[in-house]
Amino acid sequence: MDDNTFLKFNITIDYFKNLGETIFKKKGEIFITPDDILNGIYVLLKGRIKYLLYSLDGREKIIFIGEPVCIIGDVPTYDRRPAGTFVTALMDLELVFIEYHTVIEAIDNNPDFSKYFITSICNKTRGLMAEMGEQCFQDAESKVLKIIIQFAKHYGDFEKEMIKINFPLSQQFIGNLASLNRVTTARVLKSLREEDIIDIENGKYILKRVSLLD
Amino acid sequence: MDDNTFLKFNITIDYFKNLGETIFKKKGEIFITPDDILNGIYVLLKGRIKYLLYSLDGREKIIFIGEPVCIIGDVPTYDRRPAGTFVTALMDLELVFIEYHTVIEAIDNNPDFSKYFITSICNKTRGLMAEMGEQCFQDAESKVLKIIIQFAKHYGDFEKEMIKINFPLSQQFIGNLASLNRVTTARVLKSLREEDIIDIENGKYILKRVSLLD
Repeated sequence: MDDNTFLKFNITIDYFKNLGETIFKKKGEIFITPDDILNGIYVLLKGRIKYLLYSLDGREKIIFIGEPVCIIGDVPTYDRRPAGTFVTALMDLELVFIEYHTVIEAIDNNPDFSKYFITSICNKTRGLMAEMGEQCFQDAESKVLKIIIQFAKHYGDFEKEMIKINFPLSQQFIGNLASLNRVTTARVLKSLREEDIIDIENGKYILKRVSLLD
Repeated sequence: MDDNTFLKFNITIDYFKNLGETIFKKKGEIFITPDDILNGIYVLLKGRIKYLLYSLDGREKIIFIGEPVCIIGDVPTYDRRPAGTFVTALMDLELVFIEYHTVIEAIDNNPDFSKYFITSICNKTRGLMAEMGEQCFQDAESKVLKIIIQFAKHYGDFEKEMIKINFPLSQQFIGNLASLNRVTTARVLKSLREEDIIDIENGKYILKRVSLLD
């Protein structure tokens, strides 16, 4: 959020400082975990944070990057439910911690704060929607290419700086593995050929960019 | 949202009706599209709606199901940005449409409305977070099983009510196709064997549930 956006709300950093207590976190510190019930919000004055989900097998998914002067923990503070995500300091942080009751009072009595708070939650929703779109609809070309690369790694023979895949791949099979319909699979394969990334010779797929194996 | 939750906010359906105009939509009608700039919110009185994203290749992803008395279009009405999603009537609907300026006035002057409105946006964020978790971390077992089913469809031979996959599948290959690490892949394959869904004989995978091919 840049200075102008912040000024637009007619709120100053001193306003936040007067509402709560200034605290500091070290780079790398995880200061919110999914089961936490938050007693208040953090307003980020300096530094950068990330909201994270972790999968059971240890992969992490960043769902939101926060910069000054964002609010951290708005949703769980407001709805009194567990945080649902990790929040981690990407740099040393300066924050103001504002207690739940002060937050509610400020929402009820200060339209500027209320506006800032609601906009902050809207931004979270927007961020999640954008991530979701990407996540759900990862482009078809990446999916198909990823599958071809896997087959090249496992069933490929080098031939003149290209990799010939010794495996009877069919369009339908690739489409099924990538969860894409026939039309899309055909379109993507055609475009990969036109971009000179793959070729098909005597029914065998050829990966023409060896560097993609790395 | 059940009646109790609604009553908790000290808001009545008549309150909404007095703020706006009652309108009706037919089942199947798409009444919000991603590029729409909304002039106000809809409060759902009867029926059910879904929020949708569509991919370029025509797949749809439901990101939110709304029941009475949910607010539709809260975020885009508040932040004045395009809706970003489709909203479709899953049944015949009765709604109250409340104009932007009336919404803002009600947020500023009626703490009960304000609370209801902010909670509504929190619910959207929560719904998206849950969907995101599922989407990102679709359970490893489903992913692996899906791959084995695809190989069974393409390279399978029926043998005594089972399907023997005539294909040299390796753990690593399956893991790579599913984007899972070695440990997780091994764990999932072990559990699929223990659940008697698959078996491995002389290095060949066997799918023991023919019904999974449907």
